[in-house]
Amino acid sequence: MTDSTATPVRARNAARVSGTVRIVGAGLLGSSIGHALRNLGVDVALEDASPSQLRLAVDYGAGRQATGDDDPTLIVVAVPPDVTADVIERELRRYPNAVVTDVASVKLEPLNALRKRGVDLTHYIGSHPLAGRERGGAISARADIFVGRPWVVCRDEETPPADLAIVEALALDVGATPIEMTPADHDRSVALVSHVPQLVASLLAGQFVNAADESLRLAGQGVRDTTRIAASAPELWVQILDANAAPVVEVLDALASDLTTVADALRAPETPGARRSVADTIRRGNDGVGRLPGKHGQTGHFEQVVVMVDDTAGQLGRLFGELGELDVNVEDLRLEHSPGAQFGLAEISVVPSAVRRAVDGLEERGWKIASTTND
Amino acid sequence: MTDSTATPVRARNAARVSGTVRIVGAGLLGSSIGHALRNLGVDVALEDASPSQLRLAVDYGAGRQATGDDDPTLIVVAVPPDVTADVIERELRRYPNAVVTDVASVKLEPLNALRKRGVDLTHYIGSHPLAGRERGGAISARADIFVGRPWVVCRDEETPPADLAIVEALALDVGATPIEMTPADHDRSVALVSHVPQLVASLLAGQFVNAADESLRLAGQGVRDTTRIAASAPELWVQILDANAAPVVEVLDALASDLTTVADALRAPETPGARRSVADTIRRGNDGVGRLPGKHGQTGHFEQVVVMVDDTAGQLGRLFGELGELDVNVEDLRLEHSPGAQFGLAEISVVPSAVRRAVDGLEERGWKIASTTND
Repeated sequence: MTDSTATPVRARNAARVSGTVRIVGAGLLGSSIGHALRNLGVDVALEDASPSQLRLAVDYGAGRQATGDDDPTLIVVAVPPDVTADVIERELRRYPNAVVTDVASVKLEPLNALRKRGVDLTHYIGSHPLAGRERGGAISARADIFVGRPWVVCRDEETPPADLAIVEALALDVGATPIEMTPADHDRSVALVSHVPQLVASLLAGQFVNAADESLRLAGQGVRDTTRIAASAPELWVQILDANAAPVVEVLDALASDLTTVADALRAPETPGARRSVADTIRRGNDGVGRLPGKHGQTGHFEQVVVMVDDTAGQLGRLFGELGELDVNVEDLRLEHSPGAQFGLAEISVVPSAVRRAVDGLEERGWKIASTTND
Repeated sequence: MTDSTATPVRARNAARVSGTVRIVGAGLLGSSIGHALRNLGVDVALEDASPSQLRLAVDYGAGRQATGDDDPTLIVVAVPPDVTADVIERELRRYPNAVVTDVASVKLEPLNALRKRGVDLTHYIGSHPLAGRERGGAISARADIFVGRPWVVCRDEETPPADLAIVEALALDVGATPIEMTPADHDRSVALVSHVPQLVASLLAGQFVNAADESLRLAGQGVRDTTRIAASAPELWVQILDANAAPVVEVLDALASDLTTVADALRAPETPGARRSVADTIRRGNDGVGRLPGKHGQTGHFEQVVVMVDDTAGQLGRLFGELGELDVNVEDLRLEHSPGAQFGLAEISVVPSAVRRAVDGLEERGWKIASTTND
């Protein structure tokens, strides 16, 4: 067997964070940062209010247990939002020579709380890696969750350039892309692209609670995608939404107003402009979704080739083996199978220039191509 | 090469619809029904207002061009919603011995229109296959789009059992599952699980139109899933929403009220019950999304095994080949790659009993397992 599957994260770059990195909070984010830094040989000292979570994180290799003698260069606060400000304050006082950052998903509220308490924030730089998983805890941690994701860094005029360099080095070391933003811009942005979408998915899925089983049997892939994130755990979201209430409410109000407009138009279709208002809603949605960056963090465009496959792993093996022979790189893949049927559809995303090669080569080898996007 | 990829749709059952099936409207749905019936050897006579669409459908093998001499057993009206009632009426008058069905996604409006005109509806049975694709037209038609999907059939007290049997046979022949519902229940159900989700995705995506590029750079998979269907074409949706306005407005009003409740709670977090109201929103979403049937049309539960793979087709080939050797059937698969990184994560869904076998066998063969859901 080759070991080509074990490509180390960012093996192409040496570690840039040096000395000890202290991570307070050994949950999903804290432990994942620990794993990524340990892969680069960085000394990682972990602390967690829960001894069992801490033991687990150490056992899984996210770092060693912190001691009283540690002299960290950088401290990463990765605790729940409602205690973030307290822990930042404690760490700043305890390690006056270290740079302190946090990874909380709201940036203005902890900053305001710290300012109000008169804490010296010279060595504090708030940050937020846009990464996560559906599952939490040290046990779900993974070194690669930051790779290619944005990592927002909130510096201010007082931030020493050397401190900023350390936090940006952390982001780069774990494979993320540092993006400088003000705390207010950050909070407005995540309200729009994360917090409100969560609420919208939850509100929509909430309408299914009292629906008839028979009605829900008609659900297809569209509504499943639209409500997928409604499965998120409530505890964390209550804290996040509470901490970022003002920007979230602003987007919710705009959404509520648009919703009322379209509902009124549907209620009174003969009103001048009503049908146009419905069409505009769908069209604005087209425009808006088109502005979201693609899977690859850019608007890079792939074509889809849909291949019929038997519903067996061996068939997929043959398919991918032959795509490899054809020198076609699979950028993304979705497997759909028809419930009850003995076959499925593999929707393969490839760069446009590879479509012809893939289709011709596969058909030559006896595969049935259900469709391609450039039909 | 084996031809095992070419498993015919429902080869296990003989055709049950006999005689000629006339399909009016050779777009995606009409042509797809044509392909599925042709696969079973049924005589399919196609008609379309657009000569070029008709030619295309015939060229692709969806059926033959209809002639004045046809004596159809069954007529399938698969035209846009705004002309469905007219075409149903015309077909009923023209072929008094045939059963007429339609596949429009709203059922009450055309029925009411036909009743108001005094059309004899004895041989009309409305139906709605819950199937589709993002791409329309004869060119995107596929014999298998109905497989395993529900096909709603709206009979009434006057419907002759023999007529009902013919429409249900059509659904079964193309691989769908017939479900009897009243037109009103159908329309309320699709408002909930299809029409409102479409509007919600469009309204949410609409909020991105004027957002800063920088804000949208923070978008992740969650918001991409939530807004995916916002890319749908406006023309058809304006017709569908217009035809099903009352049930859609009912769900929209409930949603708007829930949205206002949560926005007010976030606006005034110190109000008694405010935080609980936010938590309830997320929790109700958990409950609602949990009620949606799974990919397989049931709430069947799969476990996920996440495997690190090199970003090459060959690697996936090896992975699926080896899963085949391990006798692990892949129920679903999502490939995520970390933008900029040289590897990806293949999230494989398997039945719970296969998790251990998959993980142990793959690790033995040198694969790196990033996580499993039953960690």
